Amino acid sequence: MPKPQIEVCFSPLLYEKYHNEHNIVVVCDILRATTSICTALGNGATEVIPVRSVEEARKYKERGYILAGERDGKTLDFADFGNSPFNFTPERVKGKPVAYSTTNGTKAVFLGKDSRGVIVGAFINLMAVARYLMRQQQNVLVLCAGWKGKFCLEDSIFAGALAEILIKDGAFAIECDATNAALDLWSIAKQYLMEYVQKMAQRERLRKLGLDDVLDFCFTLNTSDIVPVLKEDRLIPVKL
Amino acid sequence: MPKPQIEVCFSPLLYEKYHNEHNIVVVCDILRATTSICTALGNGATEVIPVRSVEEARKYKERGYILAGERDGKTLDFADFGNSPFNFTPERVKGKPVAYSTTNGTKAVFLGKDSRGVIVGAFINLMAVARYLMRQQQNVLVLCAGWKGKFCLEDSIFAGALAEILIKDGAFAIECDATNAALDLWSIAKQYLMEYVQKMAQRERLRKLGLDDVLDFCFTLNTSDIVPVLKEDRLIPVKL
Repeated sequence: MPKPQIEVCFSPLLYEKYHNEHNIVVVCDILRATTSICTALGNGATEVIPVRSVEEARKYKERGYILAGERDGKTLDFADFGNSPFNFTPERVKGKPVAYSTTNGTKAVFLGKDSRGVIVGAFINLMAVARYLMRQQQNVLVLCAGWKGKFCLEDSIFAGALAEILIKDGAFAIECDATNAALDLWSIAKQYLMEYVQKMAQRERLRKLGLDDVLDFCFTLNTSDIVPVLKEDRLIPVKL
Repeated sequence: MPKPQIEVCFSPLLYEKYHNEHNIVVVCDILRATTSICTALGNGATEVIPVRSVEEARKYKERGYILAGERDGKTLDFADFGNSPFNFTPERVKGKPVAYSTTNGTKAVFLGKDSRGVIVGAFINLMAVARYLMRQQQNVLVLCAGWKGKFCLEDSIFAGALAEILIKDGAFAIECDATNAALDLWSIAKQYLMEYVQKMAQRERLRKLGLDDVLDFCFTLNTSDIVPVLKEDRLIPVKL
């Protein structure tokens, strides 16, 4: 039997070229949506409901849901809080569903819907995601949320970090240039990760908004053993 | 005055996100279209006419033009020859215009049309392209032709090689994650370039078609001092 493949899609705008209904899609938006989703579920939220539009987000709020929401890094004015993982405290989210709408990440979750499965990845749950995928033994597509359609470094090096684990011991194979590129980028970045973060465009955007207190948290590996898995348009926690 | 920027677009499908009318767009399709265009003009073709569709290519042939054309690596059956740079010999092209249609590269040339300018880059004319851009002192966008919309390594490392020259001496600045990624990839690839080529997906496609005799040629730097420049839908040679 051929080994399962790992491919990387660097932007949601390229997704149609990489789409295959047999893939498990791993959505990543390291700064900050997917890190926050993992944090919310790790802190006891029963589910995270990814919400595409601002209008839809408003409806969830009106129906009494806890709503996290931002556009371009700024909290939606009617939301309970914004996009920082520090917002999703146990006090706020434990035992409750959370509706969540962001510029890039929550939209990317829906792109993978016509695949075998969609899960959410971040550095904080990297090894849990790898374990999940190794159990499944299916083709993997890492979908980088990017920045408004553009390539971004933080999601790409996450893809490389995940690919590095999956190809170790020869469990997965690579025939994808983007995966090889992600591996190469990660091979550089991991040597001095927090320095590497400094050159990311998103790091600068967050700094200008005073939102760069999350960097250490977002680039610390394996603090969570939760894999958010999409079930009927909701992300539920699977512990690994 | 702020320094001119260098950005990199990894796929024509992302072009709209990077487009700016003030950019000079450098189109690259290293394996093999843009290497071939540089070769044709270096060997004395008066101009290369990039042709988008197979139908349009047929019309050029009917009107008596020399026609080079391929789809998915295979020569169009009515073309004079295919996409290998070795086809564009002085005997065939000197003093003549050449019409040229390929899977990825020639289409990408037209994408940049609404910019300040479009030029064609390859490893064989890398330094000539850099000299051209340093004289212009305008923002640069390297547009990677990719493979059917997907990211490809060979075009990305070319972008990195070009960026490396342009940022040396501080003439150009980078605020683009894709440019930083391209630089990192090139920093790895240049250490052992012909080995690095072995992992490219396009290298394997060419091998299967028996068309991989061009690799040494396509990854040899600075054998040409010609920069193809788009003027009224035709690429003309500028010597630098």
